[in-house]
Order: sequence, then structure tokens, then C-alpha cells
Amino acid sequence: MRAVDIIVKKRNGSDLGSDEIAFLVEQYTGGHIPDYQISAFLMAVYFQGMTFDESAALTRSMLASGSVLDLSSLPGAKIDKHSTGGVGDKISLLLAPLVAACGVKVPMLCGRALGHTGGTIDKLEAVPGYRTSLDEPEIRRVLEETGFVFMGQTERIAPADRLLYALRDVTGTVESVPLITASILSKKAAEGSDGFVFDVKAGRGAFMKSEEEALTLARSLVRTAALLGKKARAVITAMDEPLGRMVGNLCEIKETVECLSGRLPADIEEVTYTLGAHMLMLADNGLKKEEGKARCRRALENGDALALFLKNIAAQGGDAAAVAQPDTIRLAPQETTITASSAGWVSEVDAFRIGHAAVLLGAGRARRDSVIVPGAGIELLKKTGDRVERGQELCRLYADTTTNMTEAAEEVRGAYDIADKAVPQHGWILRELDD
Amino acid sequence: MRAVDIIVKKRNGSDLGSDEIAFLVEQYTGGHIPDYQISAFLMAVYFQGMTFDESAALTRSMLASGSVLDLSSLPGAKIDKHSTGGVGDKISLLLAPLVAACGVKVPMLCGRALGHTGGTIDKLEAVPGYRTSLDEPEIRRVLEETGFVFMGQTERIAPADRLLYALRDVTGTVESVPLITASILSKKAAEGSDGFVFDVKAGRGAFMKSEEEALTLARSLVRTAALLGKKARAVITAMDEPLGRMVGNLCEIKETVECLSGRLPADIEEVTYTLGAHMLMLADNGLKKEEGKARCRRALENGDALALFLKNIAAQGGDAAAVAQPDTIRLAPQETTITASSAGWVSEVDAFRIGHAAVLLGAGRARRDSVIVPGAGIELLKKTGDRVERGQELCRLYADTTTNMTEAAEEVRGAYDIADKAVPQHGWILRELDD
Repeated sequence: MRAVDIIVKKRNGSDLGSDEIAFLVEQYTGGHIPDYQISAFLMAVYFQGMTFDESAALTRSMLASGSVLDLSSLPGAKIDKHSTGGVGDKISLLLAPLVAACGVKVPMLCGRALGHTGGTIDKLEAVPGYRTSLDEPEIRRVLEETGFVFMGQTERIAPADRLLYALRDVTGTVESVPLITASILSKKAAEGSDGFVFDVKAGRGAFMKSEEEALTLARSLVRTAALLGKKARAVITAMDEPLGRMVGNLCEIKETVECLSGRLPADIEEVTYTLGAHMLMLADNGLKKEEGKARCRRALENGDALALFLKNIAAQGGDAAAVAQPDTIRLAPQETTITASSAGWVSEVDAFRIGHAAVLLGAGRARRDSVIVPGAGIELLKKTGDRVERGQELCRLYADTTTNMTEAAEEVRGAYDIADKAVPQHGWILRELDD
Repeated sequence: MRAVDIIVKKRNGSDLGSDEIAFLVEQYTGGHIPDYQISAFLMAVYFQGMTFDESAALTRSMLASGSVLDLSSLPGAKIDKHSTGGVGDKISLLLAPLVAACGVKVPMLCGRALGHTGGTIDKLEAVPGYRTSLDEPEIRRVLEETGFVFMGQTERIAPADRLLYALRDVTGTVESVPLITASILSKKAAEGSDGFVFDVKAGRGAFMKSEEEALTLARSLVRTAALLGKKARAVITAMDEPLGRMVGNLCEIKETVECLSGRLPADIEEVTYTLGAHMLMLADNGLKKEEGKARCRRALENGDALALFLKNIAAQGGDAAAVAQPDTIRLAPQETTITASSAGWVSEVDAFRIGHAAVLLGAGRARRDSVIVPGAGIELLKKTGDRVERGQELCRLYADTTTNMTEAAEEVRGAYDIADKAVPQHGWILRELDD
């Protein structure tokens, strides 16, 4: 077998055999196929696509490049959720304790901030002492004690994905549905879950701008997961404006605790309960969606989810007391308030620009080696549909220094659109796929 | 400027500016952009193509990576011909002395055998002592003494092309019209000609299998050359069966001398005089094609072209006496004759299989480091349209050893098709483009 023949075969639009895909991944990971052949292959895949069978073969080969957590000895269903990334998207932080409180174990592999979007690992690291680099015995212990675990990608999980992702990033081959699918699934499948719910974001603040693109990715994720023997569902959710009222790392920990204490904005409530219901339905085939939502609501309202969240923080080395009272959490000291320049109704809060402003404030990484400022971020006091008067506060910006404050404030002002008439609030759940 | 942004721009189907193309070529040649970004770029070009302006910019950047021969001090027009490669294609060997004998200088940059096709440099090296690695004073001297010069690509000519070609070869990006165009033109434009005639081959034994593909390449070559300030024409010629009766290196030198002595097969005659006429027309705008052909015919029939050919051999260090009498030229000693298994009319002699058989006999390179056997090759005694009786000789195979003789003989037998009815001979000139 020669790499160039496999490249040409894909370039010409033929389907590859799983042996050919395995050859490329194994030989590349082993250092026997050079980067320049793989980057040409990735570009050919960008143009010609892959069947679900090919995506599954690619995922399997990438998964086989590393080690796989075997959680089969733990009783009960293990279900995880994955979001394709958004702004203010702290749903994982709420959902893991919520679903665990309903009796389903949640081993959750999380990522870091990417571009204008936040990352669950970065948010958790805003809690003093919290550790996401866990070895296998720790993962089992935390999962048994608290019903869920948040873990970061380690060196041992799908090393082929790390190599391929770094190459895609610099060769213009990130935006390919089969490559995105294999990258997500090769990591998710390594963590030992029985099934996944994919939250595929669509809109200005998402990587998939249109619902149609999101649907294509959602179908690819669900069908490819099925070929790997994993139960999967997908929910397409709106990401035109940020989720909830807080954007930033410690900001979102603070909002999470507020939500788990019973104060949920409508968008977070709808997205969380819907995703939670699908996770519970994956664990229990006969469960109806409304009953799943009701169980999640009960676990939140009776305080079980909050208790588990704080217990998990302690179990993963974090200072639970430091975040247990959200009103006492101190955000970054430099604060700027943005006010409305005219009266009217908020008709748009562009999630991409808010995400970008948050990065400028220090909540994300402008460069690979940037250091994140835990307390940096944005608090949205007004969102789409809200009435505002001229001079009224729209939002507050938090940062450690004033360095980028002017630029960030300008970006946030540009993110807001104020209209003369009231704008109807649209739903946040765009579509649900259960196969 | 960042390489990844230029890759994404081309991937998305936008036209690149000449500054962006120059950035890629200069930075790559200088070692500042890695292979893996360029291979992804080449694959994006494969799928999205390039405008003629982009092809011209790419050619200019590749040309600028090396040195350019300045022949402007030599009086008169300098016109070259380029063939995209075929089997038995010794037209360059005939055409250069023929056109030089008509008073037009021919500085000809030639290539080596590639795949199943022959290379003019390898053919000339079958003449004892003949040198094609010449320095600039030698090139001028030979051109002034004999009216034409055959030279190989040197380290100094378009080094970017060598780098890019080597990368394309292993990344499945050879078959791209703009990349082929820039590769050909960046070398051809370096040799100081005022204009080019492109012989674009179409058919089983060519790289372009269909006339349509050949036409696309021909148009790209002519239009891109025009943007570089070079006059150009293209002729699309048939390459379904080998040209002439001999395939191999010394074999084709022998046939060349026979042809220049006045014994021309019909296909060689038609292709040579047509291409020659176009070369003369490029040098003299007012010339009619029929007059151009007639001049070529006269230069051949009066012996001027043969005299110049032998004079050039001596001028480039070769032993002219060794090839002056074609009947005395000794081909490789192991000889096998293929006979017809049934009577009828030859309806096909597959140029690809004949070319492949010639490589097996040692006339080409099976691997990059293979050593060519000068006297190896194939003599076609029967071609399409000829009547054969059962047991009559179809062709003879020549090799130094019997190692691959059986395999080559089988390939040659498979190349011949014998039909029950006479087959009309088709023309060899498929199309002529003068702009």
C-alpha cells in the first residue's frame, strides 16, 4: 500500500477501505508517512467528503492510536454530552450534576477555549485547586463518589487526533464534516461512555453558521457513532446570542452555581432540560421526553444537582467553599459599563463579537501561549427582546488591566442592536435528532 | 501574509493575487513555508483550478526562483517546441534541425523519460559522448554553429519547479492543468525563446486521455504564455499508437537519421511538418501554413536538416559517425519476435502498453534509480491499418538480458488488436490552436 495511491483514490471521489484508512493513520502516527502527504489527503477529504463507514473507520483508527478507558465494571448507563462550542455555553457544568443526580453516570471529556468560544476545562480551572488531569483510578473514584467527572484530553487519548488537528489547523482543513466527526468521536469514544448527546450549535457564534450545516454535522455524528456501537442523539441549538447572562471562566462558574440554586435564565433552562432529557432517554429507552425534563427540573429544584456539583469540586481538588456563594465571587477588578445610546428593544446580541470581546479581556487565548485571566469576562444585563432606555446599562466588562478595554468595549457596543419595535424571542431548540 | 489564509482563500474558490502566489513560492523555495502547507495548497488548486492570470503569476514566481538565459543578443527569432509526452515521439529530434535549416534558431530545453513515455535527453544520451549539460557559453556556441541546441534542465533553471514537482509526485497533485502549465512554462520561459509551439498529445499513450482534456491544457498553455509575453501556438496530436516504427532510445536515434535521410513514415511526416510550419509561422507572421510545411519538406529532402543534425551531435560532444549510417547501428543483443496469431488487419497498437513494455525492456525507468539500456526498445513492423497473415512478424523486442522479455512480450501481444476488416487510418493532427 502506498500513501499516494490512497490520496489519489480519495481525490478521484472513490470510497476508501478501512484497511487503507488504518494504514494512513497508523503509518502517520508512527512517523512513517510525512505531514505533506497527510495534509494533501485531508484537503482531498475536504472536497470529496467521506461516507459514514469511512468516518467510522477513521474514528476507529484514531481511537486505536491511544488508550481507551474501560468503565464497563461500573454499574449503570454512562452517558456523555458534547457541545460543538459556543459563547456563554456553560451547559456541561449544569448538565453533568443534573443527570448524575437522576442516577445516570456522566464521564465527561472536556476541551479548552477555541477561538471566540469558551472551554469547560478553562472554566473549571477558574475554581482554585480544581484538577482535570486525572489518572484512571481517580476518574473511577470521582465517578463513583459524585456520579460524574470532568476530565481533560491526556497524551494517551487519541494521539492521532492531536497530530491531525494540529495539521488541519495550519492547512485550511478544519471545516470538514467527516474530519470534525472523527476528531470528536475518537476522543469521546475513548472515555468509556455507552452513548452521547451532541449539542450542535448553529448561528453567528457557532462554528456552523447555518442550521443546514449544523444538521449535516449532527447527522454525521449520530450515524458514525452508531457504526461505532454507541447510542447517540443530537440536538441543534441556537447560538446567535450568548447563552445565559455570563461569558468568561469564573463568570460562568458563578452563573452555574446561581442556576443550580434555582435562578435559571429561560434559554439555559430550555437547553439544559432538553439535553438532559435526551441523556436520560439514552440511558432508559422507554422514558418519555417530558418525563426526562421533569426529572431534571426536580433534581435542580430539590438542590441535589447543586450538592453534587459542590461535592465534585471537592472530589477533583477544588475549593468548593470559594464558589458555593455566587454573590461573594469576585470577578476581575477593572470594570467598564456599556450603556444604551438610544431607547428601544434589544434585537440582537452578536455571540461572535461578544466571544471575541471576551478573548480581548483575557477570558480566551489570542495566541497559543496566552495566559487566561480567570475573572475576566462579560455580564449581559440586557438580551434580545429586552426593553432598554437611553443611557441604561446593557452590560459590564471585567478585566485585570485596562489594556484592551477600549477595543473590547467597542466590540461589545457593535454586538448590540437596538430596534424601534419589540422583537419576538425565538426558541433555542432548533431541531432534535434521535437517529 | 499567512500561508494558511492563502490556502483557505483558494480552497473557497477565490482568485489569488500575484503577491499571494509570489509569497507562497518565494517563502517555500526559501524554506520558510513547510511542505505540508504547500501540498494542501496544491490539492486545493487541483479542485478549484486557477485563472490564466493566476497561472501566469505562478509561472513568473517559479521562473524568478532561478536564472533566465538571455539570448536577445543572438539575431533572429528563437522558437521552441514542447511535447507533453508520448511513445515513440522523436519529433523534437527531427524538428530542431529542420526548423534550424529553415533559418529559425531553436534553443530546446528537453526532459527525461517519465512513466511509460520517452524523453529526448535519454534518447540523445544513447549517442556516445553526447552532452546535454551545457553552460551558457556552450549553449550560445552550439546555437550559433548549428542553429539549435538540446539542453537538459539544470539546477539553476526554475528550482521552485523541481521542489514543487517532487511534492506533487507524492501527494496526488500531478494532474492539474494550471500546475502542469506553470511547470512547463517556468522551464521553457527560462531558456530565452521568443515563442513556443506546444504539441499536446491526446490518447491512450498520452497523459491527457481525451481530446477535450488535451484542449483544456493546450488553451491554458497558449493563453498563459501570452500573459508572459511569449507568442505561442498549440497542436493537439493523436497518441493512441506510437509515433513511427521505433520505440526506445538508440532505436529512435536510428529512426531519426532514417527519417532525416528521406524515409519518413506517414504519421511522423504529418506531425513534423505541421509542427514545423507553426514554428516558422511564429517566427514570420505573414507565412502561410502550406508554405511553412513546404519549407520543412525542402530542408529535409535536400539533406540540410540531416547535415545540421550530425553537425549538432559533434558540437555537443557526440560521435556523429556512430549514428550517421542507421543500418550499421547495433541495438541491444537479446531479440524476440512477436508474430500474429491470426490473419486480418491491425486495428490497434496500444501506445500505453508498448511504452510500458519498452520500460520493462530497459528503455525507461521502472524506479527513480533505474539505469537505462540505450539499445533496448521495440521495432513495430505492423501498425494500424496494415494487413497481416497468421504467423507474420508484428514487431521485434530488443533488450540486454532476457530478464523481463516474457513479461514485455506479453504486454506487446496485448497491445495489438487484429480485426477481420480493414480499419481506416485516422489523421494524426486533431486540432490546431493559434491563440
